Amino acid sequence: MTDKRLLRGARTRQTVLRRAVDIASMEGLEGVSFGRLATDTGLSKAGIQTLFRTKEALQLATIDHARTLIVEAIIRPALPAPHGLQRLRAVIENWIAYVELPLFEGGCFRVANLADFDSRPGPVRDAFAHDQRKWLDGLANEVRHAVANGEIEPVDPDLTAYQLDAVMCATNTSLRLGEPGAVDRARRIVGLLVSPR
Amino acid sequence: MTDKRLLRGARTRQTVLRRAVDIASMEGLEGVSFGRLATDTGLSKAGIQTLFRTKEALQLATIDHARTLIVEAIIRPALPAPHGLQRLRAVIENWIAYVELPLFEGGCFRVANLADFDSRPGPVRDAFAHDQRKWLDGLANEVRHAVANGEIEPVDPDLTAYQLDAVMCATNTSLRLGEPGAVDRARRIVGLLVSPR
Repeated sequence: MTDKRLLRGARTRQTVLRRAVDIASMEGLEGVSFGRLATDTGLSKAGIQTLFRTKEALQLATIDHARTLIVEAIIRPALPAPHGLQRLRAVIENWIAYVELPLFEGGCFRVANLADFDSRPGPVRDAFAHDQRKWLDGLANEVRHAVANGEIEPVDPDLTAYQLDAVMCATNTSLRLGEPGAVDRARRIVGLLVSPR
Repeated sequence: MTDKRLLRGARTRQTVLRRAVDIASMEGLEGVSFGRLATDTGLSKAGIQTLFRTKEALQLATIDHARTLIVEAIIRPALPAPHGLQRLRAVIENWIAYVELPLFEGGCFRVANLADFDSRPGPVRDAFAHDQRKWLDGLANEVRHAVANGEIEPVDPDLTAYQLDAVMCATNTSLRLGEPGAVDRARRIVGLLVSPR
């Protein structure tokens, strides 16, 4: 393949995956099909099929792409903050912006899909479960630092991380339902869960 | 119509809706179709179509039926307990049994569907939003009683109800993913959120 063809393939891949992430955030990964992506992007269905081969491969590539965009939006901008309460707050504020903007048309990618795939064993469920685990571990790690730094009242880091995530997921749903005050409520609850000393 | 025919229609309706609730708990209401229900129940597709007419009517009837079964499993058995901490605990324990058994093949009906429909305005989303509102109001009401009775530390009833629901929904997902200890964790968090004085 020429460099030009490779570059075109990579660009097509990006265009298709960005659209796939938006569709999946609204309707779940089941709504992501070669035909739908061809219609939405104006690219040929055969061309998209050549890039991804199977629906499952397309779904897994969509999860990968969503993860990359989420890390760029939520995790990376928080890394300059020191471990502990400051980084935890930065991650939570970035997460709020991610669902409030929202970055993806249907809001949180994980919430939109985990509910569909949690009962269906397979590589897609495994990918979501793995990301969920890493996300909770990351939150718990910052809570642990915040306790060790003496920044917040002592709490069980894993229980607190689980509660933070649960409230963030619920807030995503409240935002999708158009509930006023959903973000304020989330901030108040976060304040209760990690109260500065 | 004769009484016999009416009775047969009512029985068919129950059979179809019970199956529809199970399918929707696993794959979401989008997985509920006349053809699928005919295959799963052995009834004729035309007969099912005559009973429900449109897919949206079938979806709304499925939500109604799920609500009836959920009230029977979670709310009604808690009504003998007095308002406040006792009734709150009874409701939460019934809810845990509902997702742990689980009552429906795919676990919590609301969690499985709200994520799909929260971005799609229409009567289905409105039905879920209404049920969600009533559920949160009911939880908040028992928290309010528990505070007024002096049974628990003073908390904001609405914030606490929101947190209880968020953790219960997250626990449903953890159970579907096969996480050991999900129920124990839920009970520990509930104990933190509503601590007896």
